[in-house]
Amino acid sequence: MSRVPPHSEHLCRYFQAAMDILARPWNGLIIAALHAHGELRFSEIGTLIGIADRMLSERLKELEARGLLERAVDGGPPVKVSYRLTDIGQGFGEAQKGLSKWGRELVQ
Amino acid sequence: MSRVPPHSEHLCRYFQAAMDILARPWNGLIIAALHAHGELRFSEIGTLIGIADRMLSERLKELEARGLLERAVDGGPPVKVSYRLTDIGQGFGEAQKGLSKWGRELVQ
Repeated sequence: MSRVPPHSEHLCRYFQAAMDILARPWNGLIIAALHAHGELRFSEIGTLIGIADRMLSERLKELEARGLLERAVDGGPPVKVSYRLTDIGQGFGEAQKGLSKWGRELVQ
Repeated sequence: MSRVPPHSEHLCRYFQAAMDILARPWNGLIIAALHAHGELRFSEIGTLIGIADRMLSERLKELEARGLLERAVDGGPPVKVSYRLTDIGQGFGEAQKGLSKWGRELVQ
């Protein structure tokens, strides 16, 4: 008989919800870039984290759909679109500090 | 002229080191499972997080190579292999708490 139950609830569903966002390439870096800079245009995010346009476009749509960021459209012309974190997106800031602290151990 | 420098150092390299591990499917869950249970056999990790054997095998090798976990081999017969976190792997525990807290906001 196995020592552990299947799909154990020991793995907190809140942690799983966080990893559901972060365990995909780029999401953490996009959120961190917006957290650091407040509001960024598409091309600025691309420049900051070095991500291809197509991938960035997908990720931004995904993060917007999950309620982590929002688009602000300046009517122009020319139309300018920028991105900023919602309150839930901003909430990542504290978790980010903990990750950076752990990251410090990783690079030593 | 762009408002942000290319590949800005505002994105802390320690955070990037952490995301280098976590921004890949399963890694966070594997570390969390080992953190919760201390020591687990291959099949137990698979049962806990619902990951296919081949993927789990790849991830465990990767995490071992990065110094986050170690294999313990019980000579047997039959030989039993189990996995546990190194000190650096254990260090993820604090970051995990912060992620769980953020995850709570995400599911509300």
